[in-house]
Amino acid sequence: MKFVRYGEPGQEKPGMIDNEGRLRDLSGVVPDLAGPILGKLPSVDPEGLPLVEGEPRLGPPVGNIGKLVAIGLNYTDHAAEMNMELPTHPVVFMKATSSIIGAYDTVRMPRGSEETDWEVELGVVIGKPVKYVTEAEALDHVAGYCIVNDVSERHFQAKMSGQWTKGKSCDTFGPVGPWLVTPDEVGDPQNLDLSLEVNGERMQTGNTATMNFTVAQIIAHLSEVMSLQPGDVIATGTPPGVGMGMTPPRYLKDGDVMDLEISRLGRQRLSVTRDQ
Amino acid sequence: MKFVRYGEPGQEKPGMIDNEGRLRDLSGVVPDLAGPILGKLPSVDPEGLPLVEGEPRLGPPVGNIGKLVAIGLNYTDHAAEMNMELPTHPVVFMKATSSIIGAYDTVRMPRGSEETDWEVELGVVIGKPVKYVTEAEALDHVAGYCIVNDVSERHFQAKMSGQWTKGKSCDTFGPVGPWLVTPDEVGDPQNLDLSLEVNGERMQTGNTATMNFTVAQIIAHLSEVMSLQPGDVIATGTPPGVGMGMTPPRYLKDGDVMDLEISRLGRQRLSVTRDQ
Repeated sequence: MKFVRYGEPGQEKPGMIDNEGRLRDLSGVVPDLAGPILGKLPSVDPEGLPLVEGEPRLGPPVGNIGKLVAIGLNYTDHAAEMNMELPTHPVVFMKATSSIIGAYDTVRMPRGSEETDWEVELGVVIGKPVKYVTEAEALDHVAGYCIVNDVSERHFQAKMSGQWTKGKSCDTFGPVGPWLVTPDEVGDPQNLDLSLEVNGERMQTGNTATMNFTVAQIIAHLSEVMSLQPGDVIATGTPPGVGMGMTPPRYLKDGDVMDLEISRLGRQRLSVTRDQ
Repeated sequence: MKFVRYGEPGQEKPGMIDNEGRLRDLSGVVPDLAGPILGKLPSVDPEGLPLVEGEPRLGPPVGNIGKLVAIGLNYTDHAAEMNMELPTHPVVFMKATSSIIGAYDTVRMPRGSEETDWEVELGVVIGKPVKYVTEAEALDHVAGYCIVNDVSERHFQAKMSGQWTKGKSCDTFGPVGPWLVTPDEVGDPQNLDLSLEVNGERMQTGNTATMNFTVAQIIAHLSEVMSLQPGDVIATGTPPGVGMGMTPPRYLKDGDVMDLEISRLGRQRLSVTRDQ
């Protein structure tokens, strides 16, 4: 099943995507796709739900995201591109939840930004509380998967007195969605193609098979250092092809368009502008 | 004015502390101390509010904390203790909001922890939305101040593949409160004494006068890299005397008790146990 939230920012209603790709209204069944509801998503045939007229905006498919946890250097081929050694444990940082936007919204580069970069990532939506879980149990706590673009200002991230959070948390730097797709429809999370284009030029190409730590390993590790709640989202790292890894480096410009795609999780299209 | 939230975790009601230190019920005036209400805290004489019977638990004095942003190495004397150079910009990291507890709750060291440390810090509660503010305007966005204990697992923080978040985000590692004290009652935030004792032995002694970046400078800097919302809390760094800086290092043990105090912001008393 493919769940969405549609409407203006902060006023999104729950919906589903039917087999013909049409938007259906789920608000008669659940009030929102947030919190504990994510642990027992309704098993509904979308064909029986009301069609939604027009083409409303799609917001993030999860409401009230409590934590947006992200994993660094998690693709063996991306770590090679960055000349970084593979970490012995998942590298964990946090993106501010105030960075979250929808899959077709506009990414705004902050004032002073010269090095805004892209990162297509598999997003994992937590459905049930997680604490001290084993790798074998970990995926039982997943509500579904989505695309996350871990937009990153490299100067803020690495050249303004340390800790990556600063370059990861700018407003609009967390596009999530368009869909929350349930695990039964995604299949093996370690066999998904990821890609990202800028202005139609392919930049990133990868597959979750080359993750250094699998989704299950990441959840199990996180559960040893913090608890996870329904509605938390984990961005699991990016494959090769970020702008910072190119020679010379390439970064986003005002007017650029990013297209992201992950197998079975749909597409994001994000235009880029600059804060005045 | 001194605001509190009292009651069991997740069910706290708003209250005030009167001139005799007694707890008064504010729930007839505001539903909670959270979100936009923090930007227009009610100007109420607590003597006119109902007395609360008994001694209920005090929770964090802010509900629905959206972000718990923290600043590293922000005291000139603490940086010297750690043999670290003073940063040129505020060092920014994030503590998971799932780490937040009240001022008299129990800190639980996670499984496998050997290096759980203490950090008394001045907490700043945001009352009005912040984006691109100047240092001169910054304090206009502050709802008040509180104590934060930035509890830190040093092995998780520094020796498990990087980024501090991992050692800062364990459940119960974010004691906040007991009170949210309004700026008029706090006075100059750069002239507050801070102290922390473990089992009655003084460990940390400092004053916010030795901050490398002032509260106003921190808010202005953060506002250039992310927006802040009412209910966000900033922990502004710790003065000298953390366990990691001692020779040999000293860390918390099961059964320890931490007492924290900041001028005009009250006291925390936290017992320490270990997750089984």
